[in-house]
Amino acid sequence: MPIVEIKITDENVTAVQKNRLVSGATQLMVDVLGKDPATTFVLISEISTVDWGIGGVSVAELRRGASTSLDI
Amino acid sequence: MPIVEIKITDENVTAVQKNRLVSGATQLMVDVLGKDPATTFVLISEISTVDWGIGGVSVAELRRGASTSLDI
Amino acid sequence: MPIVEIKITDENVTAVQKNRLVSGATQLMVDVLGKDPATTFVLISEISTVDWGIGGVSVAELRRGASTSLDI
Amino acid sequence: MPIVEIKITDENVTAVQKNRLVSGATQLMVDVLGKDPATTFVLISEISTVDWGIGGVSVAELRRGASTSLDI
Amino acid sequence: MPIVEIKITDENVTAVQKNRLVSGATQLMVDVLGKDPATTFVLISEISTVDWGIGGVSVAELRRGASTSLDI
Amino acid sequence: MPIVEIKITDENVTAVQKNRLVSGATQLMVDVLGKDPATTFVLISEISTVDWGIGGVSVAELRRGASTSLDI
Repeated sequence: MPIVEIKITDENVTAVQKNRLVSGATQLMVDVLGKDPATTFVLISEISTVDWGIGGVSVAELRRGASTSLDI
Repeated sequence: MPIVEIKITDENVTAVQKNRLVSGATQLMVDVLGKDPATTFVLISEISTVDWGIGGVSVAELRRGASTSLDI
Repeated sequence: MPIVEIKITDENVTAVQKNRLVSGATQLMVDVLGKDPATTFVLISEISTVDWGIGGVSVAELRRGASTSLDI
Repeated sequence: MPIVEIKITDENVTAVQKNRLVSGATQLMVDVLGKDPATTFVLISEISTVDWGIGGVSVAELRRGASTSLDI
Repeated sequence: MPIVEIKITDENVTAVQKNRLVSGATQLMVDVLGKDPATTFVLISEISTVDWGIGGVSVAELRRGASTSLDI
Repeated sequence: MPIVEIKITDENVTAVQKNRLVSGATQLMVDVLGKDPATTFVLISEISTVDWGIGGVSVAELRRGASTSLDI
């Protein structure tokens, strides 16, 4: 019955990658905890880079190289 | 002061249905816990069927009948 | 397949009340959206009154009447 | 390493305001808890007024003045 | 910079299992999305079986076999 | 009507610090967005260091210096 919520920046994630996230996270619940995949939920949230901050600035700014040398 | 967050797949939910979710969830807090509706929040998140997985595959795939016989 | 997450302050909620929250929220998903209860999850989080703020102060302080006349 | 998630109604929030939310929330973690900004995440979710309920009605309805005199 | 939140019932999960959840979920982000593990967060929430409902009843009741034949 | 959820590791956060988080996050919503504090919620979640992973290992392990030189 686990719920796995994956929050990532919205940066060109493909349908194939999403499918791999769903299957991989589900398999992790099976392998580690013996959970039933039929009641294992995986939810993916893509969050705009203007809405995700790290180091006090948005990822959108980081990607423009504007204000930090953080390597993330 | 409760917060009720409702996560559902994004599949043609109508405005009328959303209003019923808000009023129904709020009333549940009043009836069961005696909460004040004025400080009861209800948040609805519609999540794309490509971003919601169950049984190791996305709901989008399930709806196409591609890979499982799960009846959900 | 809905997920309903209910966040409330931790103030003497009984097992009977929790059961009513679970059954009531599930029934709401059935009645309004036609969802299958077998894949409807309800999660209840009780949050300490020192960890929940409203109006700029914690509910713990509000309950002591210390710093506000908010009626919630 | 804190995560700060800010949920607000989707009502014309500007990029400048979002940047201030990110920098302000990050600074709060530094000032109060001594956290490292490099591992402090801030996530902003803008939620449609039809998906946010208070007092048993959606904010969309409240903004139209339809069903309540709540002043929020 | 992903955040992976894993919600499971509180039923004797060991420290070794938790470590495997953390490393497995992190590796999934690296393998599928090329993310940097240094800024990949994994959060595990164990939720009491009285606070998790499925099929309209709590998991605590399900485990007692009281009210359903759901096999989860 | 904003909701601010602050997730931090459970490492000796004091009541005074929590009060400062609540007041500071509320004030941020007022200053940046002009929100009404009376309907601004702040929720603090303290998460055990065994339940929070970064860099593929738990913070508990990091604090023991066992497996990484990450400075967080």
